[in-house]
Amino acid sequence: MRTVDPAKREAKRLQILAAAARCFARKGFGQTRTADICAEAGMSPGNLFYYFGSKQDIFAAVVEQDGVDTEALFAGLSAAEPWDALTRFFDLVVDLAADADYARLALEISAQAHRDERIAALVAANDRSVRSGLADLVARATGAGRIDPGLDPTTTATWLATLVDGLFNRVAVDAGFAPERERESLHLILARLLRHEAQPES
Amino acid sequence: MRTVDPAKREAKRLQILAAAARCFARKGFGQTRTADICAEAGMSPGNLFYYFGSKQDIFAAVVEQDGVDTEALFAGLSAAEPWDALTRFFDLVVDLAADADYARLALEISAQAHRDERIAALVAANDRSVRSGLADLVARATGAGRIDPGLDPTTTATWLATLVDGLFNRVAVDAGFAPERERESLHLILARLLRHEAQPES
Repeated sequence: MRTVDPAKREAKRLQILAAAARCFARKGFGQTRTADICAEAGMSPGNLFYYFGSKQDIFAAVVEQDGVDTEALFAGLSAAEPWDALTRFFDLVVDLAADADYARLALEISAQAHRDERIAALVAANDRSVRSGLADLVARATGAGRIDPGLDPTTTATWLATLVDGLFNRVAVDAGFAPERERESLHLILARLLRHEAQPES
Repeated sequence: MRTVDPAKREAKRLQILAAAARCFARKGFGQTRTADICAEAGMSPGNLFYYFGSKQDIFAAVVEQDGVDTEALFAGLSAAEPWDALTRFFDLVVDLAADADYARLALEISAQAHRDERIAALVAANDRSVRSGLADLVARATGAGRIDPGLDPTTTATWLATLVDGLFNRVAVDAGFAPERERESLHLILARLLRHEAQPES
């Protein structure tokens, strides 16, 4: 007999993932115990283990959820004018990087991907969807005459993704770097990198 | 009575740091035991503890040594023509990012900086020296007419440092990204970002 409503179950699952994400961000994967996640989520170990088999499974689900959120983000930009969409994507990245827990979690996930093949595969899939979302935006903006047609969308998307990675890392190493204050210089950088008015001599 | 030659002592210290860097890169700080570092360095625990009091001290010394290496790198570029020096700096970064152990260590250090104030302070100092080295190169290249004089050297150096961070992270998440194959597109990006021929409309 099924006693748990699927929507409630999903809400509970997301609540655990959000609590776990905060724990992993603050203590790292290695130092986080499932007891910490239970305390943060305000639930018993028995209840937690009804949803996830292990700390490893929870971490993997956090990374998977990040991928789901990324797809939703790009879907939300698909109707916008492509150059605006690209600029808004970077504004959203700036908002995420300005959230200390999110920035820390991003780094922790990258570090963990080096040591766990399952995490590496999930991270690689998320990264592919970021790059393909960006490549689509670049291709559409090029078609609309907003980006230098001499730029290859795939290579360009890879470098834009590199800039995204760098933003999260910058927050980690440089206490003086406030992403939300850098919005304007980031827009200038995107214009210099991409607009066809910005042709370098070599 | 002093029995250890200072030069030999320093060589031994650097040998331990190199062995420890490999261990930290491969297993992470949390999972590395001093026994692993002893095995990698081919020395006894007693000998290791003659040089360093703890695993924490070794990790801090690895980060400190990275700062010493960075200063040496910029010193080595100080006599070169400034635009060439800037390009060569990025070529050296590409070489480092192409070394899997180094790229992993860079991520591990960033992750650890979030959880350990002593590491955070060392990382912040290293980052300041990267940014100030880059700002000097940008200012010199601007003075030599090689960079758009409308760009502020400090802000520009911060974004160049962001690109450096991003390169190391890209290696971690994207198995298809080979830094050494991206040298040419990186040179193009630097030209578009910095050269005064590359003025965007907005």
